[in-house]
Amino acid sequence: MNVAVVGVGLIGGSIGLALQQRLGASVTGYDPAAEVCEEALRRGAIGAVAASAAEAAHDADIVFVAAPVSALAEAIDTVLAAAGGDCAVSDVGSTKRELIAGRSDERFIGGHPLAGAETSGVEHARADLFDGATWYLTPGPGTSGALYQRLHKALAGIGAKPTAIDAADHDRVMASVSHLPHVFANVLVAQAARALSGEHVPATGPSFRDATRVAGASATIWPDIYLSNREALVTLIDEAQGRLSEVRDALAGADRGAIERWHEAARLDRDALLGAGLAGGAVYELRAAVADRPGVVAEIALALGRAAINIVDMALSPAQDGSQGVVALWIQGEDQADRAVGLVSALGIPVARA
Amino acid sequence: MNVAVVGVGLIGGSIGLALQQRLGASVTGYDPAAEVCEEALRRGAIGAVAASAAEAAHDADIVFVAAPVSALAEAIDTVLAAAGGDCAVSDVGSTKRELIAGRSDERFIGGHPLAGAETSGVEHARADLFDGATWYLTPGPGTSGALYQRLHKALAGIGAKPTAIDAADHDRVMASVSHLPHVFANVLVAQAARALSGEHVPATGPSFRDATRVAGASATIWPDIYLSNREALVTLIDEAQGRLSEVRDALAGADRGAIERWHEAARLDRDALLGAGLAGGAVYELRAAVADRPGVVAEIALALGRAAINIVDMALSPAQDGSQGVVALWIQGEDQADRAVGLVSALGIPVARA
Repeated sequence: MNVAVVGVGLIGGSIGLALQQRLGASVTGYDPAAEVCEEALRRGAIGAVAASAAEAAHDADIVFVAAPVSALAEAIDTVLAAAGGDCAVSDVGSTKRELIAGRSDERFIGGHPLAGAETSGVEHARADLFDGATWYLTPGPGTSGALYQRLHKALAGIGAKPTAIDAADHDRVMASVSHLPHVFANVLVAQAARALSGEHVPATGPSFRDATRVAGASATIWPDIYLSNREALVTLIDEAQGRLSEVRDALAGADRGAIERWHEAARLDRDALLGAGLAGGAVYELRAAVADRPGVVAEIALALGRAAINIVDMALSPAQDGSQGVVALWIQGEDQADRAVGLVSALGIPVARA
Repeated sequence: MNVAVVGVGLIGGSIGLALQQRLGASVTGYDPAAEVCEEALRRGAIGAVAASAAEAAHDADIVFVAAPVSALAEAIDTVLAAAGGDCAVSDVGSTKRELIAGRSDERFIGGHPLAGAETSGVEHARADLFDGATWYLTPGPGTSGALYQRLHKALAGIGAKPTAIDAADHDRVMASVSHLPHVFANVLVAQAARALSGEHVPATGPSFRDATRVAGASATIWPDIYLSNREALVTLIDEAQGRLSEVRDALAGADRGAIERWHEAARLDRDALLGAGLAGGAVYELRAAVADRPGVVAEIALALGRAAINIVDMALSPAQDGSQGVVALWIQGEDQADRAVGLVSALGIPVARA
């Protein structure tokens, strides 16, 4: 398998290391900074250096565009223009809706690995960076099933959990679990700095340290992340303002019942959020008979992703005449496998446990 | 030294263990729940059980009232009525202004150790719970210097850093570094639970887990904490709303410059907050000549607390005729000691390094 990595920082470099070490892939890298290419080569994160993104994409089976958010759209378009017809092109940007909206190419599948937020730079790249990490994929209705399967296999092969999700849902999820917590962290440090003005030193307890660990984090990338997801984030901030007003009014009115209900609801929400998705178990094979039309694999992946069902592996077997095919899906846990049968059936696709 | 602990949960039990083990104190405990008293006795957290708070306070040199916030005011008044004239009475409640406002008794000094938030119950009590922990004290103008010194010595003796602070400042600090982070955590889980509605499972990254670790925490005590500090908290929520509106508008207007400035300011605030107060160094002795009048020790302690200067130990030596005395203060670090000389001098009190 020939893989190209465009942008060889922490994520691109880790993709290169993992694909070479675990799947024996040939990895060609390109980065606009020549010294970064050299360092990536020296560390074995890539096996060869290309002179441009287009050159890297040439002859690749998969291209990962791991450029910064601000340079992402242009890099993807360059790669799509240069790559062959049988090449999966993905990216690792932290927001997806705008990126997807402009690109209906059947070869392009948006991606976002949830890993590596703490550091940056190819010098921190590791082959095991993605072990167990959710790797969101945002296939569209035009996405090629064969290319989706190839990308899915490669990601599962390097230890990640590829999970299909609608691009707008993805951005809302990320705004909720990442971007809004960052906004809150920034607000908290600003408030505390004012409350502790002058010579006061805060007695920062663990809750404050935990809540503000990411305040002002990675100043070179976060403004871009906020701005790239500003629509979802503005909506969430508006909602947060509403919730804060409710709490504020309950406090101002010394409404103990309201405060107790609000606090208890938070406990239940937290338990539900953190308790979810921790199932394991043996792996079961499902076989679905699918019409060989664009988008059917994306439909299945999205339905299972929405239900938090982890597709451990998948394989497509098109019929010879191209009219019909079989998607084999491996799902962890009998309950999950049974739920998957129900969900795929509900799409009108014949499916059964193998 | 005879010490009484009224309320022997995690904090009261740990005070008892530490005072016995480190200072050889005799500790009598009382708790309205008889089985809690028995458990505290069995674990050696207290050496004897009293039949009431008043009985526990009788003959004590120091009484720590470690009752829940909702029962605190009544328990303190019971203890003050029963304790002798030469007894320091303190508490461990997490808000102070209301509590102090109603009690001008020279024996009462509000207290708040920043420790033990994670668990509760005497079964988790530990002698080392307060090692290195800030222990806020809120002396008033009428506070007895001798009783303040006694309390300070006992707390430093069990490993804490007693730090004097104005009661209203204390409540604003706690609202900033603890209560508002808890409010934000609750809002974040509520938002995420809605954004991830239905069957979606969140891909909760470290920033979300960190930011929401305390969401819905300790449902039996937090509503009381919020309500007891509602004035400071409402003010802070209003300010936070203002900050959120600024960010929201900058995002809605795609104002990159404003977002970058805001994010950079947060980085600076965080660095300033977390970098402060970490000085160490050798211990220096200061001697201040003080008129033997109420409040002078509180004035000194507050001035140094405000400047984040850690009083490692202190001793009062009243003149025989009661007209004049000396306060010896041990301060860590030469720079801090020199700053302390300046601050105490500024109060009109003659002071010098010994």
